[in-house]
Amino acid sequence: MTRQRLALAALVAAALALPLAAAEPDDQARPRTTQEILDASQPSDWRTPDPANTLYMDLEAGRVVIELAPAFAPEHVANIRTLATEGFWNGTSLYRSHDNFVVQFGDADADDPEKARSTGSAKTKLPAEFERSARGLPFHALPDRDGWAAQVGFAEGFPAARDGAQGQAWMAHCYGALGAGRNLEADSSIGAELYVVTGQSPRQLDRNITVVGRVIRGMDLLSATPRGPEPMGFYDDPAQRTPIKAITLAAEVPEAERERIEVLRTDTPTFDAMVESRRNRRDDFYKRPAGHIDLCNIAIPVRTPDAAKR
Amino acid sequence: MTRQRLALAALVAAALALPLAAAEPDDQARPRTTQEILDASQPSDWRTPDPANTLYMDLEAGRVVIELAPAFAPEHVANIRTLATEGFWNGTSLYRSHDNFVVQFGDADADDPEKARSTGSAKTKLPAEFERSARGLPFHALPDRDGWAAQVGFAEGFPAARDGAQGQAWMAHCYGALGAGRNLEADSSIGAELYVVTGQSPRQLDRNITVVGRVIRGMDLLSATPRGPEPMGFYDDPAQRTPIKAITLAAEVPEAERERIEVLRTDTPTFDAMVESRRNRRDDFYKRPAGHIDLCNIAIPVRTPDAAKR
Repeated sequence: MTRQRLALAALVAAALALPLAAAEPDDQARPRTTQEILDASQPSDWRTPDPANTLYMDLEAGRVVIELAPAFAPEHVANIRTLATEGFWNGTSLYRSHDNFVVQFGDADADDPEKARSTGSAKTKLPAEFERSARGLPFHALPDRDGWAAQVGFAEGFPAARDGAQGQAWMAHCYGALGAGRNLEADSSIGAELYVVTGQSPRQLDRNITVVGRVIRGMDLLSATPRGPEPMGFYDDPAQRTPIKAITLAAEVPEAERERIEVLRTDTPTFDAMVESRRNRRDDFYKRPAGHIDLCNIAIPVRTPDAAKR
Repeated sequence: MTRQRLALAALVAAALALPLAAAEPDDQARPRTTQEILDASQPSDWRTPDPANTLYMDLEAGRVVIELAPAFAPEHVANIRTLATEGFWNGTSLYRSHDNFVVQFGDADADDPEKARSTGSAKTKLPAEFERSARGLPFHALPDRDGWAAQVGFAEGFPAARDGAQGQAWMAHCYGALGAGRNLEADSSIGAELYVVTGQSPRQLDRNITVVGRVIRGMDLLSATPRGPEPMGFYDDPAQRTPIKAITLAAEVPEAERERIEVLRTDTPTFDAMVESRRNRRDDFYKRPAGHIDLCNIAIPVRTPDAAKR
């Protein structure tokens, strides 16, 4: 019955996560695997997220690391920094887990004037930041076609889209995207109530809501959150919510205690080679390489520097 | 702080799940919501899955309902019926939960000759059923472009793709797709070890693996399965696996005890109207209707007949 275990291993090789290196590293004719491409990367292929744009969300189960995107949502990011610095989210919760869509977090009692938390010195009104000018924004475009936008690719390390080099650019609602919940009014978000995409990329939200960043580590701690039994994924019993111990700005943590984390740059030949190794998987498992990849099927590699080859 | 709760409600309206009916049903100029379209549906817009093609997977947390697709994978479906009838999966487990990819289930000890379960009278060799002839297969095409295939749409009620009306057709790896794990050889699956897509649609697997059906109810019971700590989502401790009490063919359950479930037909004007209401969301929340929808962003409505308007 070895076949059965092999079947598991073979399916594993098809995973979005990085596969193990193939067994024949000396076969020069064989295209490099994703892992081989990363193993051959240079230190300059990697970047360390700015601690001023990095949040640590501490749950009982572990830490989620978020990178904020001030290039796309400067006002929201500034407000989020204020909220984190003042401890707004400490003791709040993941109060919604909507299957194949989002987890949402913040102050579950925000609508109860007697219980609602103060948002402290954070601004109570911000402009909508659904999109920005594409001018002056380095954009690393994918050759792959997209149904939702004229062009997709990466900007500032985030999955993004634009309607032309002279037009508008915006962050895409891919798995892990962090967005600011809002009311019916476009400018009604302040970054206090946030959601993370945990399902099939809801790209219809693009340009309709302010995306403020992306989870770069710990998605598994959010995505497996038990779904709320209410129709929209809310919990009927507050005890079902997942407590958030704290959300902290990395810049406020002593340097020695910060997470060691590096993200692959998205504007390098190494990144292009990595994407191509996913676009056309030329290993023994795949009989028909797809010849295409969707923006939201590209997992941006992350590593712990200590564990990386130097 | 009512705004905060409204912010939740507004994001809710953007959900893939069916939204509540809008507050102004008498506004004739307003496009119908998805819910209004479904409320106006006729009994003929719905179908009851054939019990001979329906599986019940019973977990401690509840029941998952699966519809098999004999039109696409007749040999695998026949084998799966045999395996279910003989109780192959009773007492097995979900032994892998790979974040943003799949849960996998079956016999976790399949590679240990001393522990492996017998597959009984099921066939031990099947042809690969990655695709089938598009001839003679009614295909309800979407007008929306797709990066992975020349055309996408629905066939036999399943999300599907084809390379032309005279060429090949296949089921698409959307959220909830049920596939047969295999070895490196294309014809190495027998339908005993199965996976369900729980993450961003891994369409690169299309035409590379045999898709055998789709989960039509209970995805939340699979998608929130705690992720395995091993690199591919396997568990390091067997106690972490999720027990499967039984997988039963609905046809073998007395009719009075079968699940009452109806699925919206995918080849009707009602379905087209429902999709259009998702492609261009014209409610107060959306400032910019997308004008597009991806195949895998379309959730096929399911209802319990007792609860439906008749």
